[in-house]
Amino acid sequence: MLEKRVLDKLATIVGKGNVFTLPEDLVCYSYDATPTPHSPDAVALPDSAQRISAILKLANEKKIPVVPRGAGTNLSGGTIPIQGGIVLPLTRMNRILELDEDNLTATVQPGLVLADFQREVEGRGLFYPPDPGSLNVATMGGTVSEDAGGPRGAKYGTTKDYVKGLQVVLPTGEIIRTGGKTIKNVSGYDLTHLLVGAEGTLGVITEITVRLLPLPEAKLTCLAIFNTIDEAAEAVSAIVRNRIVPASLELMDDVTISYVEAYKPVGLPRDAGACLLIDVDGSAVDVPILLEKVSALCRQQGAREVRVAKTKEESDALWAARRIRFAALARARPTIITEDATVPRPLLPKAIRAFKEAAREYNVQVGFVAHAGDGNIHPGIMCDARDAEEMGRVQLFIQKVFKTALELKGTLSGEHGIGLLKSSFLPWQHGDEAVEAMRRIKRALDPNDILNPGKIFPG
Amino acid sequence: MLEKRVLDKLATIVGKGNVFTLPEDLVCYSYDATPTPHSPDAVALPDSAQRISAILKLANEKKIPVVPRGAGTNLSGGTIPIQGGIVLPLTRMNRILELDEDNLTATVQPGLVLADFQREVEGRGLFYPPDPGSLNVATMGGTVSEDAGGPRGAKYGTTKDYVKGLQVVLPTGEIIRTGGKTIKNVSGYDLTHLLVGAEGTLGVITEITVRLLPLPEAKLTCLAIFNTIDEAAEAVSAIVRNRIVPASLELMDDVTISYVEAYKPVGLPRDAGACLLIDVDGSAVDVPILLEKVSALCRQQGAREVRVAKTKEESDALWAARRIRFAALARARPTIITEDATVPRPLLPKAIRAFKEAAREYNVQVGFVAHAGDGNIHPGIMCDARDAEEMGRVQLFIQKVFKTALELKGTLSGEHGIGLLKSSFLPWQHGDEAVEAMRRIKRALDPNDILNPGKIFPG
Repeated sequence: MLEKRVLDKLATIVGKGNVFTLPEDLVCYSYDATPTPHSPDAVALPDSAQRISAILKLANEKKIPVVPRGAGTNLSGGTIPIQGGIVLPLTRMNRILELDEDNLTATVQPGLVLADFQREVEGRGLFYPPDPGSLNVATMGGTVSEDAGGPRGAKYGTTKDYVKGLQVVLPTGEIIRTGGKTIKNVSGYDLTHLLVGAEGTLGVITEITVRLLPLPEAKLTCLAIFNTIDEAAEAVSAIVRNRIVPASLELMDDVTISYVEAYKPVGLPRDAGACLLIDVDGSAVDVPILLEKVSALCRQQGAREVRVAKTKEESDALWAARRIRFAALARARPTIITEDATVPRPLLPKAIRAFKEAAREYNVQVGFVAHAGDGNIHPGIMCDARDAEEMGRVQLFIQKVFKTALELKGTLSGEHGIGLLKSSFLPWQHGDEAVEAMRRIKRALDPNDILNPGKIFPG
Repeated sequence: MLEKRVLDKLATIVGKGNVFTLPEDLVCYSYDATPTPHSPDAVALPDSAQRISAILKLANEKKIPVVPRGAGTNLSGGTIPIQGGIVLPLTRMNRILELDEDNLTATVQPGLVLADFQREVEGRGLFYPPDPGSLNVATMGGTVSEDAGGPRGAKYGTTKDYVKGLQVVLPTGEIIRTGGKTIKNVSGYDLTHLLVGAEGTLGVITEITVRLLPLPEAKLTCLAIFNTIDEAAEAVSAIVRNRIVPASLELMDDVTISYVEAYKPVGLPRDAGACLLIDVDGSAVDVPILLEKVSALCRQQGAREVRVAKTKEESDALWAARRIRFAALARARPTIITEDATVPRPLLPKAIRAFKEAAREYNVQVGFVAHAGDGNIHPGIMCDARDAEEMGRVQLFIQKVFKTALELKGTLSGEHGIGLLKSSFLPWQHGDEAVEAMRRIKRALDPNDILNPGKIFPG
């Protein structure tokens, strides 16, 4: 509970109508896409960096936790106000401030929805690649704070590869700018990239400048169907080894295929071991040549069928299966946990074999999808958060997944962040000394530990 | 002067033959490509992270400055041991540790020469784009610490766009790993990108993992000659506005052309106002189409001639002028200072007009080249460091250049870093509060300020 004096001060800063304390309001800001809700004490919706600065100064004075929030689609618990305090949704700050078509950059506010931004730039023949599954609701600020990726990561990287500058309110309330609108910039420390992926623990992002690409002239899609997941994974390795970089290279396993077909039949063969959904993009002359190369490699690796989309509608139909995957799994069991371990690309077949074996060992229901072109594997764990015995097995499975990924020189997270769910594993990947270096930076910028406390670092 | 006990300890750590204290040895490590030499007290050449860790622990104990050094090609004074102490050349650590062709990554030691690395990967059909002018001598560690760019920055970005992981010895001696071999990675703070461009002030880099691209199938070059620099700069804007991204887009002004032709005639018309040297790369079918579009745009913007190279030899001949530019200017006057202001791409014509006006105002001799495709302008200032009056005017010119670049939302440095020469200007760009945030990070990781002290931050 916050003192009345603090609530009054909050109301003075953001306006009375933008502060919420009733339980029915707080519950809306107590969860994200993970099964670990916790209620804040208050919610305050600011509309400017200046007001956020005032809130952070107040929070430092009173030692109150503050948790910045976008659309709450976080998959690692990063948005949960685990220590209560004030949740700070940035959804009122949702404008495009500048779209500099001649410089190929845009500057936006953090509350802007990613898909709205992409529609706007694509209408002008420009391209902003990051494409997390949540793109229709996720905010630009959230995707920057989590370094969101998606299927296009294989060719286009993740959010960090596009962010060139930020306006940030530091935990202690100072408003600063980092980076800028230029392509090259090496002036002082790269605070921009320290903030990207920092999960809202080092500052509240209030403006984002991103670079844009020219929209590729053409894109084509194919779907390759394999009898075994090993064959599909080996086809991925063959494509990368042949120096072909598809725009997306998505893998779905047999379990995922069967749930997708049970939910909304899209015509995938239920006896297939796995399928690869592949987009190639580039110039109009190049793309058909690329697609032919990719299809041929899939066939060489044992694909029993390669379906090629000839129109945008056919391409959308092929993508439908991938898009409904989460909903399809969610019908099966009450709780879905999507993990995010990532390995170097050639080790994808080995990692998937090990993960499948671990699922059998701990008797855990898992449907696998992978952004296979970049080694990013999403085990979709179907379980019931109310069943302690099952959740114990799920935890053992997750631990095994991370241990395996790290043994293969991979990472705990390709695009979901560490948040709450993976904080205890952080030293497994980095070692105590690197974690301590991160903590020293956190303490240097947030001496009172008020900004999104309890995240990233182990307890 | 260092105590004998410290020198003995250094000899124990790296071996007696790898410690130098004679003046004739020290002078070799007292300078870089800027006119501000300062002698160290000792030079120690380590061959492992463990030995570097031992040196940094000793340095902390005795409060001795330590300055990591590659090939000493730094253009902002970042390599100068301005407070004496120990210079730590990393040139003995020069091996490729792994070239993972299937993962499109390589892991190298910091002392490896950039051009040697590029030859090795290109021999395997792979591509590592960063191409600073010093690439034949610059080391990988130096290019990472300075976030080196070059002509290919227009399409391919700078070093930071390729570094995926590091092994680093922190200023306090801990050996840590950051990032890794995966394309996606969002696990804890992005220490990798905090270290890239930190100019050796936050850690000594001992291993570097970079991503590689498939080598483009084809590349073609053209040279467009203009009567005025305004027309050339407007042609650059037209190319970017038309959503064409050449691999390189280099501009040379009339002064540069005349010195180049006086030094080693390559056939540039001495009455031209400026020329653009343009590389396009990509697939074999795409590249001729792209080159035709670029040539047409140059002609539309008033190019009086566009020369197209039909062979690699013809392309090399066109590039010769750009490559000898530094040597050509250096013949004219004893001191050459190459500045590095960078502006958003559409503002290139405006910036160049303002810089030329400033050169006239302060009566400073300047030949301009620019990595025009990314707005990175290099005024090559021809002067004499021994003439205090002239150097006063040079300083005023440089200040005007930076003021103008920052007014145009540009940066103090696109690819040379801040080092010594630009440290007093850092707050102009970032403001005191952002500079203080950088200082807090420096203090958190280097509490005794022993690692490359006196750099980046104003006195």
